[in-house]
Amino acid sequence: MTRWKLTIEYDGTPFVGWQRQENGLSVQQVLEDAVKNLSGDENRIQAAGRTDAGVHARGQVAHVDISKPRSAKDMRDGLNFHLRPHPVAILSAEEVPADFSARASAIEREYLYIINNRRASLALEQHRAWHVPFRLDETLMQDTAQILVGTHDFTSFRATECQAKSPVKTLDELSVTREGDHIYIKARARSFLHHQIRNLVGTLSLVGHARWTKQDVIDALEAKDRAKGGPTAPPDGLYFMRVTY
Amino acid sequence: MTRWKLTIEYDGTPFVGWQRQENGLSVQQVLEDAVKNLSGDENRIQAAGRTDAGVHARGQVAHVDISKPRSAKDMRDGLNFHLRPHPVAILSAEEVPADFSARASAIEREYLYIINNRRASLALEQHRAWHVPFRLDETLMQDTAQILVGTHDFTSFRATECQAKSPVKTLDELSVTREGDHIYIKARARSFLHHQIRNLVGTLSLVGHARWTKQDVIDALEAKDRAKGGPTAPPDGLYFMRVTY
Repeated sequence: MTRWKLTIEYDGTPFVGWQRQENGLSVQQVLEDAVKNLSGDENRIQAAGRTDAGVHARGQVAHVDISKPRSAKDMRDGLNFHLRPHPVAILSAEEVPADFSARASAIEREYLYIINNRRASLALEQHRAWHVPFRLDETLMQDTAQILVGTHDFTSFRATECQAKSPVKTLDELSVTREGDHIYIKARARSFLHHQIRNLVGTLSLVGHARWTKQDVIDALEAKDRAKGGPTAPPDGLYFMRVTY
Repeated sequence: MTRWKLTIEYDGTPFVGWQRQENGLSVQQVLEDAVKNLSGDENRIQAAGRTDAGVHARGQVAHVDISKPRSAKDMRDGLNFHLRPHPVAILSAEEVPADFSARASAIEREYLYIINNRRASLALEQHRAWHVPFRLDETLMQDTAQILVGTHDFTSFRATECQAKSPVKTLDELSVTREGDHIYIKARARSFLHHQIRNLVGTLSLVGHARWTKQDVIDALEAKDRAKGGPTAPPDGLYFMRVTY
């Protein structure tokens, strides 16, 4: 048995999310089918992050065990051959020790959220960004985001169905920048709660639109009540960028 | 009657091209339907460039006449409303004099061709770039491209069905640059022949792959014979960027 670390890009649009589900095609299923077709092994593939339906990845990481030895190049190219025509690509494959876990060994995860902040509807970026047609003030958003960085109880910003044991997480970075019509929100942490980034982005959008003040966000954070947090931004703008081990 | 100049973005993937055709949905049809639904006018819309099936636009320009006066904002937003859910967006609408022609008044057109030059198949860029999995030398491509700049008989690089009166065109710019895995080819000219950019890109890819030399391209240009030119690059990587008037 060889344990393989795979770095994966995918367009989340056609999938029910990372995880296998009864009601549709998942990224996990497409990858496990490719592994089986390439190697004959019916092994489970485990990811660093279980992205929701519609969420994309530029650097998701997963591990899987394969019985027969093969080169890293053959592993990558062979899986990519069997992944066609699904919008899932193996960017790299590398052999790792048997105790490597894509999920448990991760020390930091990075996500990027893209807002297209123009009046005209989206054409080339349909499903690739959140379209916010009214002007957002990215300076207010960036300023407010800084109060969320650090260790907090994020109960107000996690999905009610979130299964994490503790709502306390440490946000290493939450930065908001603008380039032309695009607003980029970068988030880094060891781990995130379910919907945490989308709920933070939805909340920051209220600040950018001057409907909430910085104090409203402080109050929401301190309330420790999901009903006091802002709305959930759509999955379309969210990209899982990289994992540090 | 008011003549309107429209600046348009579209994802070319689901369309048979700009021009109305019997065999499928065109960008022109979708826009003429939106104009009719907004204004009641059944007027023809004319574009600066009739892009092929699968070719995208970030700044196509077209003009159309509308009987009832309305503000530029209402024109843009109203058309965008009626264009849903098609991946076509009006970036701006402005009133122009009745003698303005999106096609005939243009003094320069700019296109961008995107090659994704990595080994792994495409996921997020499916239909948005040409995937060339073997390494291309962009320096050789850029060097060779310069012999194509200027006024030449481009017979070897135009579609055999091209209906332009003369095969002589003046290429103002043909530049090749790399950023990471992406190779960008920018082309500027007053006008282009049918398939000219895709044929030039296909030919330059042979040079980048060291299958053709610069001299082979000079020979092909001088042959004035389409059979001596290189292959046609796919439409997926081509973007109509802007028009100067």
